[in-house]
Amino acid sequence: MPAEIIDGKRIAAEIRAEVANRVSRLNMSPGLGTIIVGNRTDSATYVRMKHKACEECGLVSFHHPLPEDVEQKTVIELIQKLNADERVHGILVQLPLPKQCNEEQVLGAVDINKDVDGFHPVNIGRLAMKNREPMHVPCTPKGCIELLKRSNVQIHGKEAVILGRSNIVGLPISLLLLKNNATVTICHSGTPDMAAQTKKADIVVAAIGSAAMVKKDWIKPGAVLIDVGINSVPDETSKRGYRLVGDIDTKACEEVAGMITPVPGGVGPMTIAMLLQNCVTAAERTVES
Amino acid sequence: MPAEIIDGKRIAAEIRAEVANRVSRLNMSPGLGTIIVGNRTDSATYVRMKHKACEECGLVSFHHPLPEDVEQKTVIELIQKLNADERVHGILVQLPLPKQCNEEQVLGAVDINKDVDGFHPVNIGRLAMKNREPMHVPCTPKGCIELLKRSNVQIHGKEAVILGRSNIVGLPISLLLLKNNATVTICHSGTPDMAAQTKKADIVVAAIGSAAMVKKDWIKPGAVLIDVGINSVPDETSKRGYRLVGDIDTKACEEVAGMITPVPGGVGPMTIAMLLQNCVTAAERTVES
Ligand SMILES: NC(=O)C1=CN([C@@H]2O[C@H](COP(=O)(O)OP(=O)(O)OC[C@H]3O[C@@H](n4cnc5c(N)ncnc54)[C@H](OP(=O)(O)O)[C@@H]3O)[C@@H](O)[C@H]2O)C=CC1
Ligand SMILES: NC(=O)C1=CN([C@@H]2O[C@H](COP(=O)(O)OP(=O)(O)OC[C@H]3O[C@@H](n4cnc5c(N)ncnc54)[C@H](OP(=O)(O)O)[C@@H]3O)[C@@H](O)[C@H]2O)C=CC1
Repeated sequence: MPAEIIDGKRIAAEIRAEVANRVSRLNMSPGLGTIIVGNRTDSATYVRMKHKACEECGLVSFHHPLPEDVEQKTVIELIQKLNADERVHGILVQLPLPKQCNEEQVLGAVDINKDVDGFHPVNIGRLAMKNREPMHVPCTPKGCIELLKRSNVQIHGKEAVILGRSNIVGLPISLLLLKNNATVTICHSGTPDMAAQTKKADIVVAAIGSAAMVKKDWIKPGAVLIDVGINSVPDETSKRGYRLVGDIDTKACEEVAGMITPVPGGVGPMTIAMLLQNCVTAAERTVES
Repeated sequence: MPAEIIDGKRIAAEIRAEVANRVSRLNMSPGLGTIIVGNRTDSATYVRMKHKACEECGLVSFHHPLPEDVEQKTVIELIQKLNADERVHGILVQLPLPKQCNEEQVLGAVDINKDVDGFHPVNIGRLAMKNREPMHVPCTPKGCIELLKRSNVQIHGKEAVILGRSNIVGLPISLLLLKNNATVTICHSGTPDMAAQTKKADIVVAAIGSAAMVKKDWIKPGAVLIDVGINSVPDETSKRGYRLVGDIDTKACEEVAGMITPVPGGVGPMTIAMLLQNCVTAAERTVES
């Protein structure tokens, strides 16, 4: 029996509808302040998608494009202004930053209450710690957990293997799975036999950025596979000359897995849905307090 | 061939000598401010041991005992005073705190530069994150890594299994092993088959608080075993009526392991040695800056 496909697009749409509903019950519009430094077209596209999603769900966005050669001081001053701005409930600094800006110092300037990306070290620290809760959880990892929960996958007591340990995906998803009482194994470029590690997993999260690296014979029959990877591979049959694939060899792994997220249409749509969710939560908290 | 014993007492003495040497090269005495709330005899013993160790290595300590029923506000005001006190380079709040004191809020008040226990969420967050470094690393976990390094155990590429995920031991040691490029598996009370997990490990860290729970048949031949557990078991042959044992069934596991830390005399002595090391580092930083 081929694996059940986890439909991220459908689940993300469900969450956006929930967000729109929560917004409609507030007497104000949650606001997202976005900062983008420089002219990277991929960053511009991501931010545009986020603005569009905000608008559709009743959030307002305040966009702050800054020139490629802006001083770090100026970026931090802008963040401080947004920290103080009552119309802004969430702040998003689009990564990567140009080299004159120190990512740690810039992200560390965001008020943890408005840190809707969940990248502030206090929020990561609380995510890591038992009996602590961050103000916000990073969006892509949170989206992975939502996909599991809304697909009725039990996490508690399961063996989860995470491929990748980046600050924005692999590490926080590992911490989240641990908080949900999985037994967690974290693999990375220093892992000698990733196939053997993956083979024992009930839940696999692949976040390595390597096209179709995870093969069918890495997978335990019935395992749940979450594919975070987004890789473009040449494809002459496509108008654009390329197509997007994940870190998992989907077609082959479908034959053994229990459930699998497709690329595109799996984790991808969840990231923005979680950003909206974090923003409306931040806005609700200001109302409550 | 029986396992090599990792002599924590000897290694800790070596580190204390290094600390004393570093202190002698400073034009001042590093200062440790200690806070203890209430009258727990175990806490009093621990703090006394820390003071004694400070004295032996040329550090001064400033002790602040507070009554069991002190208000949290008073504890935090004291921390703020110590944060501002130039003679104090490290601050230690002995845990556990009585219930009227919120551990998160109290520990969060310590200046991260003086957080020689490494428990501040910013320091834990930085410990978790790639390319970030905490101001200080928690003492017991840091001691475990020192034991491995000074015993020439390679960590990079090895499979490390950690039993326990507490904020003060299991979690930070997992993060440290990950930073040192081990493939890391974290087990806890929700792990169904801890024996099977442990069996695959090149490096086992046991921090569960359950006397001699880790058995010989859990161990892969040649594995390195770090026993953090300190458990007292009844013993009529002892004057005190009890003796201390670790989380590992040492005698039996010695027959298969490659290296093992004894209890007592393994990880135990390292904790205070690392506290001294963190303190002198904090003092050196104030001189450098
Ligand atoms: N769906 C979404 O919304 C999002 C998707 N992504 C996608 O997810 C993927 C991962 O992104 P990100 O975490 O930012 O990437 P990074 O490059 O920051 O991290 C990659 C991680 O994978 C590990 N790794 C890389 N190559 C190998 C290998 N051959 N064997 C074992 N481990 C390896 C690295 O190990 P080491 O640490 O040792 O270097 C690192 O931990 C990318 O394809 C990215 O496009 C990212 C964010 C959002
Ligand atoms: N040598 C030294 O200097 C120090 C020694 N210690 C000793 O280390 C040990 C651990 O201390 P600490 O981390 O503070 O203890 P905690 O009680 O805070 O944490 C124990 C951890 O072990 C897990 N655990 C407990 N029982 C089991 C079980 N039967 N099966 C699987 N997992 C289990 C718990 O899981 P869950 O999270 O699911 O509850 C938890 O993560 C103790 O013996 C303590 O005395 C501690 C500090 C310093």
